[in-house]
Parts: sequence; structure tokens; C-alpha cells
Amino acid sequence: MPAIAKSEHLYHEVADRIEELIARQALKVGDKLLSVRALSKEQGISLSTAFQAYYHLESKGLIEARPQSGYYVKFSPRHSLALPACCEPADEAMPVSLDDMITSVYNDLRSTNILSFSVSSPAPALLPVAKLKKSVVHSLNHETDHCLGYEHVQGNAGLRKQIAKLSFNWGGTPAEDEVVITAGCMEALTFSLKAVTQPGDAVAIESPTYSGIFRVMQSLGLHVVEIPTDPRHGLDLAYLETAIPRFQIKACLFVPNFNNPIGSCMPDAKKMQLVQLLAKREIPLIEDDIYGELYFGKTRPRTCKSFDKKGLVLHCSSFSKSLAPGYRIGWVLPGRFKQQVIGLKRMSNVATNTLAQVSIAHFLQNGRYELHLRHLRKALHTHSLQYLQAINEFFPSHTKVTQPEGGFVLWVEMYRKADGYKLHKRALRHGIGIAPGQLFSASQQFGNYFRISYGTPYSDKIEKALKTLGELVAGL
Amino acid sequence: MPAIAKSEHLYHEVADRIEELIARQALKVGDKLLSVRALSKEQGISLSTAFQAYYHLESKGLIEARPQSGYYVKFSPRHSLALPACCEPADEAMPVSLDDMITSVYNDLRSTNILSFSVSSPAPALLPVAKLKKSVVHSLNHETDHCLGYEHVQGNAGLRKQIAKLSFNWGGTPAEDEVVITAGCMEALTFSLKAVTQPGDAVAIESPTYSGIFRVMQSLGLHVVEIPTDPRHGLDLAYLETAIPRFQIKACLFVPNFNNPIGSCMPDAKKMQLVQLLAKREIPLIEDDIYGELYFGKTRPRTCKSFDKKGLVLHCSSFSKSLAPGYRIGWVLPGRFKQQVIGLKRMSNVATNTLAQVSIAHFLQNGRYELHLRHLRKALHTHSLQYLQAINEFFPSHTKVTQPEGGFVLWVEMYRKADGYKLHKRALRHGIGIAPGQLFSASQQFGNYFRISYGTPYSDKIEKALKTLGELVAGL
Repeated sequence: MPAIAKSEHLYHEVADRIEELIARQALKVGDKLLSVRALSKEQGISLSTAFQAYYHLESKGLIEARPQSGYYVKFSPRHSLALPACCEPADEAMPVSLDDMITSVYNDLRSTNILSFSVSSPAPALLPVAKLKKSVVHSLNHETDHCLGYEHVQGNAGLRKQIAKLSFNWGGTPAEDEVVITAGCMEALTFSLKAVTQPGDAVAIESPTYSGIFRVMQSLGLHVVEIPTDPRHGLDLAYLETAIPRFQIKACLFVPNFNNPIGSCMPDAKKMQLVQLLAKREIPLIEDDIYGELYFGKTRPRTCKSFDKKGLVLHCSSFSKSLAPGYRIGWVLPGRFKQQVIGLKRMSNVATNTLAQVSIAHFLQNGRYELHLRHLRKALHTHSLQYLQAINEFFPSHTKVTQPEGGFVLWVEMYRKADGYKLHKRALRHGIGIAPGQLFSASQQFGNYFRISYGTPYSDKIEKALKTLGELVAGL
Repeated sequence: MPAIAKSEHLYHEVADRIEELIARQALKVGDKLLSVRALSKEQGISLSTAFQAYYHLESKGLIEARPQSGYYVKFSPRHSLALPACCEPADEAMPVSLDDMITSVYNDLRSTNILSFSVSSPAPALLPVAKLKKSVVHSLNHETDHCLGYEHVQGNAGLRKQIAKLSFNWGGTPAEDEVVITAGCMEALTFSLKAVTQPGDAVAIESPTYSGIFRVMQSLGLHVVEIPTDPRHGLDLAYLETAIPRFQIKACLFVPNFNNPIGSCMPDAKKMQLVQLLAKREIPLIEDDIYGELYFGKTRPRTCKSFDKKGLVLHCSSFSKSLAPGYRIGWVLPGRFKQQVIGLKRMSNVATNTLAQVSIAHFLQNGRYELHLRHLRKALHTHSLQYLQAINEFFPSHTKVTQPEGGFVLWVEMYRKADGYKLHKRALRHGIGIAPGQLFSASQQFGNYFRISYGTPYSDKIEKALKTLGELVAGL
């Protein structure tokens, strides 16, 4: 192991142990920690490693340095607001109908110039602007036709190769020929749904789930069956098993890793169970893994695709949450539905933007993506703790909130009669954007919930906005 | 007028008059022209202007310089092969079914490394590579977030403004707010069809028409009614009028300017008639104007949109045929269907690539597009005459071929029993790609036709390939 990696490993280990003490409340909020010198002595580590460990915990918002005094426990992630409840199981498969309220909220979110907690994408400050720019300029100068020509309908071969390589991280071994490039993940999901369903079919989704999914399903004339989903371990498999025959479910669309908005991550063993359960019934599974790379733990959670033996899993993802939202580059590993998906791509928009594909391929080839992801994960983890702490501090004590282990968003449950849409409208008047819970269910559950994105680095301005939001929640 | 523009104007004028003489056969193929000196004297122009006029006519393939001898008429565009026939009117509205043959041909066209007359897009040599690159680099350096963020779902405001400005050329006066940006023209057409039809509806199209249209209609469950279309003046309006009640036509999708593959341009008065005819019946018209800027005449043909008073015309176009195929930037002016189209865009792929939009907007802002188009039109006009001449020379005398006044393609009719698909397969063996006529009809008409694109500059290699093609046609 190189020296730098070894020291990084060491301070992580020490920091993790301290974090564990805080979580078990062996160290409580307000407790003073050992001095850097004492820690170094106690643990038999260098002063610099001891300092790095504290610095790391500080950047995560767990401890704070008080001038002339030392380090103190600032926040305990486990000793905080409760987790939100699970949704009610479905009584019937229902056609999706999104009313004007939801459309209006969606427009507000995009068009108003506000401090937005409502968009689940990374702030530009978190993105590798300069290095990606270099890749674009390189591609303009060195590629055939300077990227002016049509790309192959299935996508740039170099990019497909890089995506195949990325898949090793989640236990996949696809060939580049199994990858189809799309204009973002929504397009991948849309083509996948079209490839495996007919209008009128019932499709199982997690509840709550991202409103964009409902819109696509509505446009394809599909019915949704909402499967209750736990903030920790994901969807209720037992319920799914009974729902399949009851609602004649023809396909599933799930977000196993850091589901939006609930942030749950299905344990890998459960993913395998799910894949087997569906394989037995020959039911296709569309897997939206757009947040999979944004894990806070030690290893990349696996994907359902990695357990797929029958080509029934259509694995969808993109670079929109991790690298370049505006480049609109996503992909799907469509398994046995590859020809249908390629056909849909060809007739929808012929091919995806050439320059963006070639540039991202170049960025990945040079190992820049892995490096960037390491920084991004650390930053998002820190944000999540900082935001959580502020919510702990400023929101009414009956508030419940998720503690995601990855992704971008917190899912907040208010008291039973509070109205997320009302909160949305009041918050807008203070220049604050949130996504009301009503957006995340076809059956209008979650009226007393809302979603907050922590994609923007924590600051005084953010803190002030969260404080205001807490007051608004209390006043509902 | 600056001196250069004035001299350019002058040699054009002289060249045009000579071209007219050739067209009227006052000057016949093989006739000797005045010497440069004599022309200069006769017309009262400088030697250099006289030379430029001849040079221009030579580059168009109309005259040739013979060493030690002078200039001779080489080709007469009006004295050549006959025009192809019109198609048969439809007997019924039919569901689209594209068989494996067509799919296989389409794959061949894309994947084989051949001298391709089959793709109707400009050769990279005709595109403003360096200047567009400058616009991309400028956008990377000077735009908010370096173009990494999501663009607005409706599209970049600057680009929409430029597209609105472009519309003045065809008699349009849209506000930028009426423009919706899409990932190319196919996407614009798809959203437009979705916005105005339901599965099972009958939609009128020109016959022959581009195969991509059939694919989209098939996927939307639409039925097509093929309207006979004349190579000179476009579709048969009288027939359309009777077909509307007979087939219960719910929408029309036409390419009034330089229809692919037939190259016809509907006279502006006829466009007005068409718009009025449909307006009276409240039938939406989807207008594909992707070739509209590539006219060879003196002025831009107008569009149906310019006659639209009721917001029933959805005007679609893109930069794919004129500037940057791989950038995938198109647009639609959806009239009264704007909200539906924006909704479809949002749920299909959220927004279009930011960098490509901003870069093209910058390119247009700087007046570079108009300049480029002038060059491109001239080049394509020249190619068209050069290709036509070769076909005249090398193809059997019973061959018929269109003489388009714009666009990219020639439509060739062989003798009645010849088979375009067979020609396609034989040509492939010689490393030559063509698009067989079968691709251009839902009712499998045009078996003895094929399409040739003249997007690639004429060369010895092209000439040899056209000669081979002529021999293959003769041997069918």
C-alpha cells in the first residue's frame, strides 16, 4: 500500500471509531474530546494523522473545534429525529392522473429564482468543471469530424466500453455491446418501460417515488401499483409477492439504491431475492440506479442487474447526478430487450449528442471519474449530516426525517395534518424551494411530507433558510 | 454596398444569365462560349469578374474549360432524363408494418463502411468545423456553470431567440417564447404527433416519404394515408381534400420544402391553400421544414407556418442537415399545442444538451450561420448538377430522375420491373450504399426506385461509383 493511502486508511479508521462512539452515545453532544496530542499518544498514531481524523469528523459536522478550547461533539446522527413512516399498501392498481396542482408546483420549482432545496442534482461547485472542459476541448480537436457527425444509434463505442468497466464496481461484467446510450436516465427509463409493457399494464413502483416516473407512466397509459417502501431497507418484498397476482403486475420499476425521495438502500441479499422472485414469474425489472455511485459507506452497493441470469433486468443510469446534468448522457443495459430499446432510440431522436459522449468517455478513460466520485461522495455525506443537524435543531421535535446512506435528498415527515403544498407556497414567499410530498405518490399520499435536497454546500445562507423552514413547519 | 459584395453580385448576375441561356438551350451542350476577354468587353465588366462568372459556372458543372481552347457548355439541367412518376392514391388507411427487410437495409446503411449515397446529411467537409469549435470553446469558458447544469425544459432562451430571428426568412414572426428546443427534428416530429393524435388515428403523409416517419407512426399505433406527391409541386391537394372525410384524417405530416426523397417544393400559394383547407376542418398540420434553408433559388421558400392563423401548424426543423448532425439540436413551433409538447419533452429526457444549445446560439448570434448557409447552398446546388450529369451519362436512357431545387437527394426511377432492394444488395458488394425505394412507402410502392444523396462533394471516386451504379441498374 503506498504511504499516502496507508495514512488515509489510518485516519479513516480512527475517525470511524470515534464516530461509532458518538453514535452509541458513549460520547454525547457537547462532550469534550481528547486533544490532538493526547489522541496521538493514546492511539499510537502521528500528530498529523490524529489531526486529520478530527478534521474529517469536523467536515462531516460531527464535532467542532472551539477556539482556545479544543474539540467537542456537535452532532449525533443516531440520536435525532425519528424515521418517517412507510406508506399504506395499495387497494387497487390505478391509472395515473397528475392534477394541475402538481404541474404548477413543478413549474414553480424550475422557473423561480430561489434558494432551491427542491432539485436533486449537485451544485456546480461540486462538479469537475475544469477537467471536464479539458476533455471537451480534447474531443473537439482530436476526434473524427470534430464530433459534428451522427453518433451510432447505440452510442459511442468508447463510452460504452467505459460504462462496461464502471459496472465492475457493482458486480457486473457486461460487454460494451450490451450498453445502449440515451439522453439521460429518464429517456433510459422511458424506452425500458415502452420495451416491456403495453398500455393498460400494471407496473409496480416503490412508494413514495419520483414524480417524473408517474408522468412517463401516465403518457404510456400504464397503471401503477405502489409498493410500501421502508426508509432503511427498501421495498416490502412480501407485499410485492402478493401484489403480483392480485394486480396482474407485468413489470417493475424500482430504485434499489438510494431511492428518491426516501433514500433507502435495499440490502444486496434482498436484491438477489427480488431478482429471483421476478425471474420465476418472467417479470421484467427496470432498475433505476442513478444514485448508486453516491454511497457514503465503504463499498458500492450492488445492483439487481448483477444477480440477473435471464436478461430480465433493464439497468438504467446516467451521469446527470454525478458529473454533468446538462450533458444529458445516460444509459441502459437492456438485457434481452436490447433490440427493442435500440429501435426506440433510433426513432425517438436518431442518436445521442456526439460531443458529450466522446468527452465523457475521454474523462473516464483518464481515471478522472473515480477520483471525482471520491470527492463528491465525501462532500455529499458531509452535507447530509450538516443538513440533518440543522433540521434537528430548527424543526419541531415531532418532525421525522430520513438518514440516507447515499444520494441527495432528505424526506421529511411533518405532523399528520400539515400540508406539504401549503408549506411549498409559504416557503416560496421566503425565496425557498422545497418539493411537497404530494409529488411523490399517484394516490396523493404523503400530503404531510416534503423533500429537501442537500446538493448545495452548507453555508450561513442555507442555515438561515433551514431555520426559516423550521419556523414555517411549526406554524402550519 | 461594400466593394467585394458588389463584385460578387455582378459575377452572379452574369453567370445567372449564361445559365439561363443554357437552360433555354440557346446555348447547347458542346457550344463554345465567349473568351473571358470577349465576355468582359461585351458585358462591360472587369476581366476578373468575367473569370469569376465562368469559374462559378464551371464549379456548378455547367461549363468546362478545355486546355488551350476555351470554355464549353458541358451540361444542360433542363435537357436530361425525365421526371419520375407520382405514386398511386391510397385505397385504405393502413397500420404501418415495417418488415425485416427494411430494418436490415437500415442497419446495413449505418454499419457498413462504404461509399454511402444513402445518408442524407452533409459531408463534414461542408460544415464550418473551426468556427463552430470556437463557439463551443467560448461557451465552455463564458457561460454560467460552464454549461454543466440542466437547461430549461423549453430550451435555452438565447437559442430560442436566434431561431425566432431565423424565421423572418420564411415569413414568420414568432416570439422566442413560441419555440421549444428538441434533440433533433425526429424528436420534434414525435412530440408533435403525440400532441395531436391518439392511437388508431389516421394521419396523412406525402408519398413517397422518409422511412423514419413510418417507424414513429408505427410505434404510436397510427395509421397512414399516403397522398400522391408530384416531384415538382408537391402533394395532390384535391386528393387530400377527398381523403380527409374518406379516411377520417385527424392530422397531417408534410415536408413542403424539398421533401425527402422526392425533393419537391410546394409553391407558396399552394401552402396557403393547404393551411386554409386544414384550418377550416380544425386539422393540425405538422410541418417538417428540415430542408427549407437549403434552397438553390434566389429566395427562401415560405413555410405553412407563415400562413397559420389558428395555431394549428406545428413547425419542426433542426440544425442536423445544415450545421451539426451530431449536436442533435432541433426545434418546434407548436402553436396551440405548446404545453403538451413541453410536457412531452420534460418527461422524455428532461431537457436538451446545454452545451450544444449555447454553442449554436453563439454561432448564430455572430452571423456565422447565414454566411455558412450561403456557402452550403452553393455547394449543394453544384453537387446536385454534377451528380445529375453523371446519372445522365452513365444510367440507362429509360431512367427517370428528379431535379430538386433544394435539399440533399435525388430520387431515381428505374424500369418497371427493376428491384431497388436487389440493387441495394448488389451495390453493397461494390462498396456503394443507396437507399432502396421500398423504404419510402408503407404500402411497399416504389420497388423500382432508389434514393441517392449528393451531400458528398463530387470526385473521381464518386464518378466511378455512379458509373458502377449505372451499370448495375442496366444489369438488373
